[in-house]
Amino acid sequence: MSVPILPPEAGRPPCIALLSRVLDMRYLMPAFQALRPDIEWRTGDALGKPEDIDAAVCWQPPHGVLRTLPNLRLIQSIGAGVDHIYADPALPRHVPVCRVAEAGMTAGMSTYVAWAVINRHRHFPDYTRNSVQGIWRESPIVPPSEHRVGIAGLGRLGLAAARALAALGYRVSGWSRSPKTDLPEGITGYHGAAGLPPLLAAADTLVCLLPLTDDTRGFLNADTFAQMPRGAHVVNAGRGEHLVAQDLLAALASGQLGYATLDATPEEPLPQGHAFWNHPGILVTPHIATRTPAEAIARQTLENLLAVQSGKRPETCADAARGY
Amino acid sequence: MSVPILPPEAGRPPCIALLSRVLDMRYLMPAFQALRPDIEWRTGDALGKPEDIDAAVCWQPPHGVLRTLPNLRLIQSIGAGVDHIYADPALPRHVPVCRVAEAGMTAGMSTYVAWAVINRHRHFPDYTRNSVQGIWRESPIVPPSEHRVGIAGLGRLGLAAARALAALGYRVSGWSRSPKTDLPEGITGYHGAAGLPPLLAAADTLVCLLPLTDDTRGFLNADTFAQMPRGAHVVNAGRGEHLVAQDLLAALASGQLGYATLDATPEEPLPQGHAFWNHPGILVTPHIATRTPAEAIARQTLENLLAVQSGKRPETCADAARGY
Repeated sequence: MSVPILPPEAGRPPCIALLSRVLDMRYLMPAFQALRPDIEWRTGDALGKPEDIDAAVCWQPPHGVLRTLPNLRLIQSIGAGVDHIYADPALPRHVPVCRVAEAGMTAGMSTYVAWAVINRHRHFPDYTRNSVQGIWRESPIVPPSEHRVGIAGLGRLGLAAARALAALGYRVSGWSRSPKTDLPEGITGYHGAAGLPPLLAAADTLVCLLPLTDDTRGFLNADTFAQMPRGAHVVNAGRGEHLVAQDLLAALASGQLGYATLDATPEEPLPQGHAFWNHPGILVTPHIATRTPAEAIARQTLENLLAVQSGKRPETCADAARGY
Repeated sequence: MSVPILPPEAGRPPCIALLSRVLDMRYLMPAFQALRPDIEWRTGDALGKPEDIDAAVCWQPPHGVLRTLPNLRLIQSIGAGVDHIYADPALPRHVPVCRVAEAGMTAGMSTYVAWAVINRHRHFPDYTRNSVQGIWRESPIVPPSEHRVGIAGLGRLGLAAARALAALGYRVSGWSRSPKTDLPEGITGYHGAAGLPPLLAAADTLVCLLPLTDDTRGFLNADTFAQMPRGAHVVNAGRGEHLVAQDLLAALASGQLGYATLDATPEEPLPQGHAFWNHPGILVTPHIATRTPAEAIARQTLENLLAVQSGKRPETCADAARGY
């Protein structure tokens, strides 16, 4: 739909700043203009009068800029994660920080996670190699009901991945900071520090979809790997900072881990010559697990701005105390 | 469970023949014996008195043998397909032919199909190669809701695959010989000759899960491929005889097809030097999409035999007129 969110007569047009240290955010402009043709823009290198700016659309925003915007009512991430915004030590804590929640983004992540789980469980790396080499050789076939998948992080993305894997017949557990009351049928829930050991002990594949916070930084470390079944598979679809690279390499070398699928790596792009490249136990993908369509970012930003201007708290607001 | 199906006192023990031209079927014996320790066996090379045999458990049985068994009450396939039994020109048509229906086998097929669809849709062959070569390069990201999957064949396996793909967010259509009234929500159904062109025209990926019959032999041919969107993907998880090999190679060469994932090939094992090996547009897997656990084969054979001996028709009986 390209119906404007607000009729042009409803007050002055919104003024939006696009802030990122790593992306050229101007790709979002057509989607915003389709919804609100009279929108006003500011980019990081030409902010103009700081008091004009109503909302900042961010991906790894430069530190210290958001605090210089006195009338800022909304800080909008372009993805599901908000860690890159909370990383700003000068963040104005009174301004709501929102994520994007969008069905296509969620489904994209589910396809990534499902592919990664099946790929290792069903030995497709071997079949893929054998198809090139002309080798007809069967690998062991284990029914999905006997393969246990543990999902760390039961936000929107984690829950959707859990549901999709359960629909494929996998035995799925999930782990979250606080207890979840709305887990889909057939999915075992664990929570808190006490819930982590049983999740890990029963994770033939562990999928990291945690938010990045001070508590979860380095979650994928030697201690975590040691609690998993020998030869297990780790999928990092969270953030590069969740993973301790040296611990992963050591666990693969010892055989404690059998395989790792990494969409997020401590350095991105992963530099040439990094030990993860061409490692027989590692598949690196270039942070492509999912994307948010520009249309959804534009629509949710304008809806969220309208909500906060009316004194409402958007449903997709992060919790500043938790950091996600 | 290893509870005997019949208490030992309930009549004489069943006598089962194991018949295959290609497999050593004796791997099934322990599973049968766990359920019915007093079972009697015959194998193809030592059938003994033909009148003793109650049931034949078959995978590509030698032609002409089944008709020599005067007291045969059940012909049991060890998989979902029964084409290899109907292929016997001397098949005794009055004896019920049953397939195996088992949740683990169905789930195994769903993981295969889901992996194959996602693999091509999300460009994992490129990422897999790039991970070996140390290349960080993003391929286009299309949300699953914009990728259309057509499933030819809506038996148990086709329906389960359709459900799993819909749970992943794909736009799923299915095609069957006769109309289906029980299609899960969100899945578009087509049927009969008139239903095939619209299915093919909207199949970015086409999955063949048809039974093999005289009507479906060679289903994956030049005419079928020509009706699909240019650059489409074909997944053959049916039988090798569904595929016309030369037509596939020509469609890939012309760009009409973009990729093929083949678990079933016209010759199995695929011979060395075959054009499918090491083809950049083809992934061959060695007929591993799914397996039936021996326990399920044994249990269903004994249950089906008990049913027909009581004058009942097992739910998993094939229809001799349809051939599946």
